[in-house]
Amino acid sequence: MTDYAAPVDDIRFSSLEVSDFAAHYAKTFGDLDLGADDISALLEAFGEFCAGEVVPTNRDGDEIGCRFSNGEVTTPPGFREAWKSYADGGWPSLDQSAEFGGQGLPPSLTTLLQEVSAASNPAWHVYTVAAHGAMETLVSHGTPEQKETYLGKLVTGQWGGTMCLTEPHCGSDLGLIRTTASPQSDGTYAMSGTKIFISGGEHDLTENIVHIVLARLPGSPAGTKGLSLFIVPKFLPDGASLGERNGVYCRSIEKKMGIHGSSTCELEFDAATAYLIGEENRGLQAMFTFMNSARLGSAVGALGHIEQGFQKASSYALERRQMRSISGAKDSDAPADRIIVHPDVRRMLMIQKAFAEGGRMLIHDLAKSLDVSGHSSSEDEHLAASRALELLTPVAKGFLTEVSLECASLAIQCFGGHGYVRDWGVEQNYRDCRIGSIWEGTTGIQSLDLLARKVAGSGGETLFAYLDAIAPEIERWDEVPDWSERRAEFDALIAEWRTATTALVQKGARNPEALGAASVDYLLLTGYMLLGFHWGRAARKSHEKIAAGAADAPFLANKLATSRFYFDHILPRARFHLTALERPAETIMSVEETAFDRTALTFGA
Amino acid sequence: MTDYAAPVDDIRFSSLEVSDFAAHYAKTFGDLDLGADDISALLEAFGEFCAGEVVPTNRDGDEIGCRFSNGEVTTPPGFREAWKSYADGGWPSLDQSAEFGGQGLPPSLTTLLQEVSAASNPAWHVYTVAAHGAMETLVSHGTPEQKETYLGKLVTGQWGGTMCLTEPHCGSDLGLIRTTASPQSDGTYAMSGTKIFISGGEHDLTENIVHIVLARLPGSPAGTKGLSLFIVPKFLPDGASLGERNGVYCRSIEKKMGIHGSSTCELEFDAATAYLIGEENRGLQAMFTFMNSARLGSAVGALGHIEQGFQKASSYALERRQMRSISGAKDSDAPADRIIVHPDVRRMLMIQKAFAEGGRMLIHDLAKSLDVSGHSSSEDEHLAASRALELLTPVAKGFLTEVSLECASLAIQCFGGHGYVRDWGVEQNYRDCRIGSIWEGTTGIQSLDLLARKVAGSGGETLFAYLDAIAPEIERWDEVPDWSERRAEFDALIAEWRTATTALVQKGARNPEALGAASVDYLLLTGYMLLGFHWGRAARKSHEKIAAGAADAPFLANKLATSRFYFDHILPRARFHLTALERPAETIMSVEETAFDRTALTFGA
Repeated sequence: MTDYAAPVDDIRFSSLEVSDFAAHYAKTFGDLDLGADDISALLEAFGEFCAGEVVPTNRDGDEIGCRFSNGEVTTPPGFREAWKSYADGGWPSLDQSAEFGGQGLPPSLTTLLQEVSAASNPAWHVYTVAAHGAMETLVSHGTPEQKETYLGKLVTGQWGGTMCLTEPHCGSDLGLIRTTASPQSDGTYAMSGTKIFISGGEHDLTENIVHIVLARLPGSPAGTKGLSLFIVPKFLPDGASLGERNGVYCRSIEKKMGIHGSSTCELEFDAATAYLIGEENRGLQAMFTFMNSARLGSAVGALGHIEQGFQKASSYALERRQMRSISGAKDSDAPADRIIVHPDVRRMLMIQKAFAEGGRMLIHDLAKSLDVSGHSSSEDEHLAASRALELLTPVAKGFLTEVSLECASLAIQCFGGHGYVRDWGVEQNYRDCRIGSIWEGTTGIQSLDLLARKVAGSGGETLFAYLDAIAPEIERWDEVPDWSERRAEFDALIAEWRTATTALVQKGARNPEALGAASVDYLLLTGYMLLGFHWGRAARKSHEKIAAGAADAPFLANKLATSRFYFDHILPRARFHLTALERPAETIMSVEETAFDRTALTFGA
Repeated sequence: MTDYAAPVDDIRFSSLEVSDFAAHYAKTFGDLDLGADDISALLEAFGEFCAGEVVPTNRDGDEIGCRFSNGEVTTPPGFREAWKSYADGGWPSLDQSAEFGGQGLPPSLTTLLQEVSAASNPAWHVYTVAAHGAMETLVSHGTPEQKETYLGKLVTGQWGGTMCLTEPHCGSDLGLIRTTASPQSDGTYAMSGTKIFISGGEHDLTENIVHIVLARLPGSPAGTKGLSLFIVPKFLPDGASLGERNGVYCRSIEKKMGIHGSSTCELEFDAATAYLIGEENRGLQAMFTFMNSARLGSAVGALGHIEQGFQKASSYALERRQMRSISGAKDSDAPADRIIVHPDVRRMLMIQKAFAEGGRMLIHDLAKSLDVSGHSSSEDEHLAASRALELLTPVAKGFLTEVSLECASLAIQCFGGHGYVRDWGVEQNYRDCRIGSIWEGTTGIQSLDLLARKVAGSGGETLFAYLDAIAPEIERWDEVPDWSERRAEFDALIAEWRTATTALVQKGARNPEALGAASVDYLLLTGYMLLGFHWGRAARKSHEKIAAGAADAPFLANKLATSRFYFDHILPRARFHLTALERPAETIMSVEETAFDRTALTFGA
């Protein structure tokens, strides 16, 4: 029984073959001279690091969890050591600018690797993501002096970082934020208030923690237009060393269903010294830089959960013997057949596999857009990539975190009763996974962002432009034998999707609640269609390489088989969501509120 | 914020109105003179007992759980006291025969009440179900002497019970059981072996525990045809008092994802004294008596989880304020609107509500069949009820436990981040709930039972007979205004379901794997259609009563609204499963085993 190992071959296939990263890097980062071998070497090295230092901390991380005492958080055994190796290995600095000690590699490379740490230990991974988020905000919005002071320490992994948004009375609704920052005579601000659900808000991995905090200036406008962004370090920097302890304290950590090794903190700011980052009252805009990357990060985390569960369930199914095959004994010498022979076990594994590999292709493609939007010298390319990112990031986040819940559940199901007990780790995966569709904006929030803001907001044009852009690839699917029916089905679904989009845009103009009621179905539809596109393209490319006599033919044949499974057994779900989109919002909105109160209506009393 | 309370009005509507329990009892248990008021009174009383004594133990049950030390299990605080009240209140004896101290009430009444204890504390509820299973097995298969010795003590709740099937190497595959029972000169047997996953295998609620154990006689045939059933009491009975300690010992309890208050035991039988129950080598048949009732019990448990989650999520949504309504502020005086105004929050709640109330109607209808199959004096009625039970029990179990996972997840989603932390209890509900689709036969096992054994095994006739029986009710749906389109859609789905069934029966005859590959989709399709039937009938009956000027019109109008939601937003899922049924099994079965081993195939290495 193997535990998790980085699926290096599949990451290579998706990034190098399907998304053609080598050509992409040559074009967008030509000066780096970054070839397939370099990418492979990085993947192997990070996979080895995680296998050796991160995977072994996952179980204790769950069972022991973080301990809180007197304002201090002790992370689980091995977390500090793994962090030190991570920092010493130079991993936090990968995509940071050389100016601040980084290695200046493309952002997409970090995305490729993040999947592996997320799957190795999702709780430990959180600290890396939080620090990365703080770095990105500083890079985009910090003054040269702020970058000088903070970035260098974050890049080496010497300091950690957080993003502080949520308060007890506001999660999704940041306009309600009450934490205030009052200007002081020395140009700093004094911050007071309470933040909750702060991942990595306190821990013992690093000597200092850089909090990036959304707060309100005195007299600022109500709502989100009165929010500003601040840096609040745990220890004030004093030249190159640590100065005095700042007034930000951890009051408690949450007891959560999973990711026990990640400290989820209530932070109290008690006249803490804060430094404005970016402009006054433009904090939300600055925060969005980070939010988009955090959403992609959540999608990557979901992929990690799917892959981890798939690997565990597959290994088990290849070994566990139970019942005879329905078509007759396969291993007559053994007392029972391996459960991999049972059609439904295979079906459950294929669903996990199709989402893992399909999700990977979706993410790698988005990561490429991330590179182009940030680094392309062509204005047209930059614009197209930015639009694709805006449209697809909420889908990747919402869709992959939703299907990761299904996959984590199926991984348990493959184990039967053995999946419900701790022994094999799939129940931990199920618990850890559940946060995905909630943090960084719930599925409902992602769906509204997609349908109301991006799609309806552009009169549907953002979507139609994307569909036009992928049409030439779909036309080529006829090159694959036995693919013409699948292509026809896909074309029909795209046509219905276009029609439904136009109808929704019109309905939404008259009644915004129609958008709200349809939003999650619309996001899921989009997700299934996107994965369909990636699976179709993968099939086309696999066929092409096999026909050209590729050495990796068994791998590629397997890709074709998985693509067939996706089209035959998963893609039909898209039509259910199309149907749901047509149903009137009134069925939902006209229900009286008493329906939701068991004490309000009596019968036969 | 309310915690869980028994939904007495809705149970009344489903049992008394939709399933017409009063008429049913008058017909099948006429001598009992059991009217609507009696049923109401029992429901109210059991609801009060659970609210007072069982609900308060749920949280500690999870946080403290069972403790194991030196072979003994200590249940969480309050479990013993709740059990004592339960026994003192006469609840275990409700449907047991007066001959052994029972109250001789219909089995369906127990089903009605079980929902409430399952929702109040699913872990505590397990002990009641295990004892009930032991009683049923004794009633059906015990000798008069065995009934005399054991039933009386189980009926009063003085003793507990278990069902011991699983062993480390066999869960679904009982033919592999190795535990042996060797005949002794005194007519008893000496049992040796190891059982795992035994719910309530050891605990401190009762002075004795009656284990019902599946084991193998020396020299018995291999497989399931060599299994016999035994009684193995923890303490040997000595007249009316306890005799010596028997050789059955708890070696450990499992660490599980949820239901921490239910002890899941590894039991070692060390030459334990065992008494044969039923005939030699007919143990599996005897066990099936219990299995069917346990499957219905699991469906009831799933209903409990759905209802518990719905109540918590609804209360929260009616109070929590976050964001403005997409159609404009609803409570301008407050800083934000209550989240119940958001279409997607409503959608999530309506899904939970439709499954809770729909699942309840399905279960109550099955419980009626249970009564008729066991107590009707008419041979025709008995036969029809038994056939319906055989067909529908695996659907109720498989379908409701599967959708309960979705509902428990949606309950969390309504809370956002607050659902992932312990405070509100919905994360516990999610963890507790996950066992449902595994124990008492996984969804895969239920699905094969339904499609391969019941449907294909009868050439489809079992299903067609059921569809014929419900056809007259469906014809009446046109009486409901605005229902003709919904009825047409339902009729179309039934026609497609018939066609798909015939096609599958034929395919299965040529290739049994086609049944295996389609089985879970077939079960889910059946589940969605059954709930559609119940929701349609509920709409028709509600409309009828409203038209007749019923006092409960607001309640009934709400039923119509929920039924509309089910038809518009949930029933279309049936068509997805119909599509999946048509897809070739080869897409699943022809995938090479290397697909499931990340180390087997390389790419670009």
